[in-house]
Amino acid sequence: MARPRTGIWLIGAKGGVATTTIIGLIALKKGLSENVGLVSELPQFAGLDLVRWEDIVIGGHDIRSTSLVEEAWKLVYESRAIDGRIVEKLRDDLAALDANIQDGTLYNVGKTIVDLSDTKLRTVQETPRTAVDRLKGHIADFAKANDLQRVVVVNVASTEPPVDEKQFPQTWKELEPQLNETGCPLPASSLYGIASLELGFPYINFTPSLGTAIPALDDLAKQNNTCHMGHDGKTGETLLKSTLAPMFAHRNLKVMSWVGHNIFGNMDAKVLDDPENKKTKAVSKDRLLGKIFGYTPQTLVTIENIESMGDWKTAWDHIHFQGFLGTPMVMQFTWQGCDSLLAAPLVIDLARFADLAKQKGETGLLQQLACFFKSPLGTEENDFAKQFAMLEAWTESLKA
Amino acid sequence: MARPRTGIWLIGAKGGVATTTIIGLIALKKGLSENVGLVSELPQFAGLDLVRWEDIVIGGHDIRSTSLVEEAWKLVYESRAIDGRIVEKLRDDLAALDANIQDGTLYNVGKTIVDLSDTKLRTVQETPRTAVDRLKGHIADFAKANDLQRVVVVNVASTEPPVDEKQFPQTWKELEPQLNETGCPLPASSLYGIASLELGFPYINFTPSLGTAIPALDDLAKQNNTCHMGHDGKTGETLLKSTLAPMFAHRNLKVMSWVGHNIFGNMDAKVLDDPENKKTKAVSKDRLLGKIFGYTPQTLVTIENIESMGDWKTAWDHIHFQGFLGTPMVMQFTWQGCDSLLAAPLVIDLARFADLAKQKGETGLLQQLACFFKSPLGTEENDFAKQFAMLEAWTESLKA
Amino acid sequence: MARPRTGIWLIGAKGGVATTTIIGLIALKKGLSENVGLVSELPQFAGLDLVRWEDIVIGGHDIRSTSLVEEAWKLVYESRAIDGRIVEKLRDDLAALDANIQDGTLYNVGKTIVDLSDTKLRTVQETPRTAVDRLKGHIADFAKANDLQRVVVVNVASTEPPVDEKQFPQTWKELEPQLNETGCPLPASSLYGIASLELGFPYINFTPSLGTAIPALDDLAKQNNTCHMGHDGKTGETLLKSTLAPMFAHRNLKVMSWVGHNIFGNMDAKVLDDPENKKTKAVSKDRLLGKIFGYTPQTLVTIENIESMGDWKTAWDHIHFQGFLGTPMVMQFTWQGCDSLLAAPLVIDLARFADLAKQKGETGLLQQLACFFKSPLGTEENDFAKQFAMLEAWTESLKA
Amino acid sequence: MARPRTGIWLIGAKGGVATTTIIGLIALKKGLSENVGLVSELPQFAGLDLVRWEDIVIGGHDIRSTSLVEEAWKLVYESRAIDGRIVEKLRDDLAALDANIQDGTLYNVGKTIVDLSDTKLRTVQETPRTAVDRLKGHIADFAKANDLQRVVVVNVASTEPPVDEKQFPQTWKELEPQLNETGCPLPASSLYGIASLELGFPYINFTPSLGTAIPALDDLAKQNNTCHMGHDGKTGETLLKSTLAPMFAHRNLKVMSWVGHNIFGNMDAKVLDDPENKKTKAVSKDRLLGKIFGYTPQTLVTIENIESMGDWKTAWDHIHFQGFLGTPMVMQFTWQGCDSLLAAPLVIDLARFADLAKQKGETGLLQQLACFFKSPLGTEENDFAKQFAMLEAWTESLKA
Repeated sequence: MARPRTGIWLIGAKGGVATTTIIGLIALKKGLSENVGLVSELPQFAGLDLVRWEDIVIGGHDIRSTSLVEEAWKLVYESRAIDGRIVEKLRDDLAALDANIQDGTLYNVGKTIVDLSDTKLRTVQETPRTAVDRLKGHIADFAKANDLQRVVVVNVASTEPPVDEKQFPQTWKELEPQLNETGCPLPASSLYGIASLELGFPYINFTPSLGTAIPALDDLAKQNNTCHMGHDGKTGETLLKSTLAPMFAHRNLKVMSWVGHNIFGNMDAKVLDDPENKKTKAVSKDRLLGKIFGYTPQTLVTIENIESMGDWKTAWDHIHFQGFLGTPMVMQFTWQGCDSLLAAPLVIDLARFADLAKQKGETGLLQQLACFFKSPLGTEENDFAKQFAMLEAWTESLKA
Repeated sequence: MARPRTGIWLIGAKGGVATTTIIGLIALKKGLSENVGLVSELPQFAGLDLVRWEDIVIGGHDIRSTSLVEEAWKLVYESRAIDGRIVEKLRDDLAALDANIQDGTLYNVGKTIVDLSDTKLRTVQETPRTAVDRLKGHIADFAKANDLQRVVVVNVASTEPPVDEKQFPQTWKELEPQLNETGCPLPASSLYGIASLELGFPYINFTPSLGTAIPALDDLAKQNNTCHMGHDGKTGETLLKSTLAPMFAHRNLKVMSWVGHNIFGNMDAKVLDDPENKKTKAVSKDRLLGKIFGYTPQTLVTIENIESMGDWKTAWDHIHFQGFLGTPMVMQFTWQGCDSLLAAPLVIDLARFADLAKQKGETGLLQQLACFFKSPLGTEENDFAKQFAMLEAWTESLKA
Repeated sequence: MARPRTGIWLIGAKGGVATTTIIGLIALKKGLSENVGLVSELPQFAGLDLVRWEDIVIGGHDIRSTSLVEEAWKLVYESRAIDGRIVEKLRDDLAALDANIQDGTLYNVGKTIVDLSDTKLRTVQETPRTAVDRLKGHIADFAKANDLQRVVVVNVASTEPPVDEKQFPQTWKELEPQLNETGCPLPASSLYGIASLELGFPYINFTPSLGTAIPALDDLAKQNNTCHMGHDGKTGETLLKSTLAPMFAHRNLKVMSWVGHNIFGNMDAKVLDDPENKKTKAVSKDRLLGKIFGYTPQTLVTIENIESMGDWKTAWDHIHFQGFLGTPMVMQFTWQGCDSLLAAPLVIDLARFADLAKQKGETGLLQQLACFFKSPLGTEENDFAKQFAMLEAWTESLKA
Repeated sequence: MARPRTGIWLIGAKGGVATTTIIGLIALKKGLSENVGLVSELPQFAGLDLVRWEDIVIGGHDIRSTSLVEEAWKLVYESRAIDGRIVEKLRDDLAALDANIQDGTLYNVGKTIVDLSDTKLRTVQETPRTAVDRLKGHIADFAKANDLQRVVVVNVASTEPPVDEKQFPQTWKELEPQLNETGCPLPASSLYGIASLELGFPYINFTPSLGTAIPALDDLAKQNNTCHMGHDGKTGETLLKSTLAPMFAHRNLKVMSWVGHNIFGNMDAKVLDDPENKKTKAVSKDRLLGKIFGYTPQTLVTIENIESMGDWKTAWDHIHFQGFLGTPMVMQFTWQGCDSLLAAPLVIDLARFADLAKQKGETGLLQQLACFFKSPLGTEENDFAKQFAMLEAWTESLKA
């Protein structure tokens, strides 16, 4: 009997993170890449029923008229991020996968994202409910056509403008009717989330957009016996903050100020150049320090679009702390990482762990996945080492 | 009835770390300093029977003919490390404490340290046993004169040349007779350790020197119902290594090389300028990476004497790691910390925790104090977060 | 016969730069400081008729109700910038000098500076002309009382909001009548400049404020046979830009982007926290790159108020450049300098050179002082090495 | 009539620098690369009789049995230094050029270089004279076969161990007979130089090896009406030192210490891992500071072989300087440059300028090329800006 297969459905499927995720998954399947960067491949997670590379099928939504191959070459030659030999070998696979990518929705994504979209999508007139049903159709067809037991939906699309969470009711019963109104303030990321959860599929929000981060959608997830988690993948500077801040706390060193400047130049950077979209991001990068320290040092986080950087995100952090007898000292770091290559393996990890969670009957928020997120939903734990221990404890319990 | 008092006996009592420790203890006692930098003052350690500032008496050994006040002003004006107003206020206290500092031993400390010593000490002719007995006399007299219930001996003297540990027998019974031979290869740090343990007092080795890090001296500690721990206080670059390396490991990012360059210019730096003494240090700074990663990246650690830096130690670390799909990325950090001010509060913490351990009947190696050391004896745990959790678990168990 | 004496009149006389300038001048006079940081003390400038330390008298304007001694201790203990032993020795001199500091003007300085001012100054009602005449009176009285042959006025006050230069007429004859109108858009820095030039005294603008940077005031300077120069002292990051950018140009390395982030926390930082005032500064820090390269790389400059930094300004610059065959490379630097201590010696240098220029009959803009300014008036030369050669050539010509 | 053609003969023709130089020259000839990084292509050097890309023919000596194509792919895939698309297009040209590369000499190159060499070369038994004559034959044949008017020989081979320059006589007449002795201490780099100069061809030493840096070989150059220059191409950290040190000097900021740590992992790094060879390099990187400052700050330079870095050289420099009133401040920089790509365009520039010099009748040392070298022969000028002005003045004089 054939092993059950799992689909990974990527929102923003032609973006840098998704393209890298897809390249990685095919390369892993074909034995062209080692498993560096994949948390789920660590020894402590061996023996779990994690989906194998050969049992994963990829599909997704996007709103731009480009191709995976074109995006892949950009990562090779514009950003010098990916080894061209890998893309050369996967060219046909990537070309074939374009057929698995369907038109997404521009509902409440904000002007900057609309400006980047395929023009034909801009004239679509849908209520949120109509959009959700259309998106559900794509995912359901994909599952059926590929004979998939489960699909995990992962949002890796560009960051949307912020939405006031307080305006939404607490239950799905109260929220659902609003989907029929054209003025409904839910953004696209939430509509994808609803589509996913209504199908009973896990939804993972790798971006700081709203997604399913409101009680009414957690309610929906539980009603449909499925799970979800978010938000904002922790790939670089914030990963370091959540690692270093506990060290300062454990040594009782008093952080007076923590300044972080980030520069990069990919599509995400272009979208974040819109002050509205950037606002969503900065909040997500900056909130954890106060929670870890128990007091609030002065903080500053900037994130700027510098075109020449391409997919390479460079962060400079300056940490000004007080030592014994009040003497001020300084730690600085720079982080030069390739944004898509840091994110992609975590997307794969999240899809595998969410798939496992669904398989094991978990419902609601997957707090055990906190270590993957800048702002993990449903938990106040921001210490990376402790978050990682949560993941280990959960998976250990599954083995028993 | 008067509360029992505890002595802290510092080996290298006129050095930068000791001088800062002493300034700090008096400042804390007089309410002139906050408790920043003191681990033992964190909320999770409240409620333990830790000795209070007012119940601590200070003494020590040194081999140089200087005074605490002179050393203190060097830290204020040469290194710009300590706020001069504090020293101004403690001038009389420091002057009085010089009387509590006795002549140490130059036995096997190496040429560089001998060259720094008070010339009158260079002509002393003692067997190790005679030296140990003399040192014991100083500590015992100190305890008696000050009516101390316990004394904790902390070695903060300059780093000695390396000693081959394999040459020593496994038991105290076998080792003890060697103390009567003038060719006995035990260095001064071990003689201070023996003096301490024979008196039943805890011994903490804050330096990379040999101290009590051999089975025969652990045997001695246990025979005398006392405890000990080492070695090499984890104050800066290595603290960061033991914090950051687990992060790379948890993300399955493959560290290809980790280069660390350290510069500073205090007395320690002068001693480490002797290639023999430096050898002891570099090993201590570099061993943990392989243990954390489970594989061995290329590593390089230098530590150089740059006079203008004074007590300010600056480290630059360059971490070259491989991400997903084999793409190389870089993290760099610089750490600008004041060596003595980072070390001093940990010396106080260690003395308090060791005093507590002795009080609670702990014997042998205090592995629960691993988070304070670059090369913690008796444990293979090098992940700082996990080491800290060990400390929390131990103290929690004492509260119960 | 007594040697002629020169006055240095500081606008913003109680600020960090002025306080440091004053401390430095007295320390030099008393032999308490070496001449490190003073350009005018380099060997190539020996033999010029530069005013000697003992022949300098200090006075100034300010708008805050503080004292020099208070400001000095802030630099010692809050910022850890100045060695306290120096201030201790100059305490009486500083206290006496407060009497030489007169009330300045708040005319068009912007809300943020007004908020910092002595409240009694806020109710003063003056036309620009009345203000100028009052300020002139102070300076003239100072010159007379101290029997000064010349006075150099140096503006080291906080940065004002930007003013549109195009609105002013080209000649003094046309501009002068506007001083009688209360709506006249000239800011305080220009009124001090007019006061100075009408008295025939040189005016140096060490700030990015307008000062005398308009043709009508150059006209006034020439009519009164005096000289002036500005603007914005080149102390740190921009000094490095004007040194490093020519290197990239000479090697034909193509700079794609140059990002600079500055943090500091002194009074200047507080004023620049007002977006209006910051605007004046950022323009001044960023304009030279295009002029040096002949093409315009993407640039970004931020300057942020981080309180814990005090007078210590830290800049991080990330320079992304293309090398041979199009390969991108990176240079980064951090600059940790004490703002007031970098500026003060240049203020003294500028006063000495301007005093010399006046003595030698120079009128109008002193372009030969370009190396001291971020945005040197009257010249397009931004290469620091070439600017310095201009200074050497000029002084050489004076020796002949 | 055909334009005269010039040969560029590379010593170490299959190394990283030479391979990149060759790729660059062909790419420029074919219009596949812009002229970024080429000094000789700056506007101020237009109008000179510099040899054109299409008139350059390439040949050289090497001692390893590899191929240019193989070396090129290493730069593409191991070091991620060169865009693979360029190498793809030049594959046939590179393969053809292998035929132009002849066997060099291992005479006095030191053990480490011998260990890297083609084994068949290790058994060659030649006196220096026999070796020189053989090498001359290769170059002369190359010139004849390609109908070249001039050949410029450029040494880009690995660094040899240091040689005591004082042991050599001052004139060629005295030195020449020593070439017949097998114990003659001249290293290979000098034998290539002699071969070149005896043929009347310019010799450029881009390495810190001895080459023609002794009076007797300058004598030889002049006797043969030809020119030469060296040594050690100034590509990265030292370029920055010679740019930044004058800035500190011009501001009278007193540099107390300058520490520089370099890491890289290419063939050069492997050779420098031999302490003997490294000695030659470190001296060259460190000598200029004292000359620029007029006093000697404490300096430290390390250069270490870190394999994962490949051709990417990263330098961290820590500059500790004293500002006004004695306050210590810090500048740090990191330089992440691709060694071969920084060197190659300078090799091309030097060949073009030396070719021009020969054409214009220059003999002896070409001091006007000082800006290209870490330790320019025949001049004490180490200020990069002034060195560049020397080049501009010389070329300007040729235009007149």
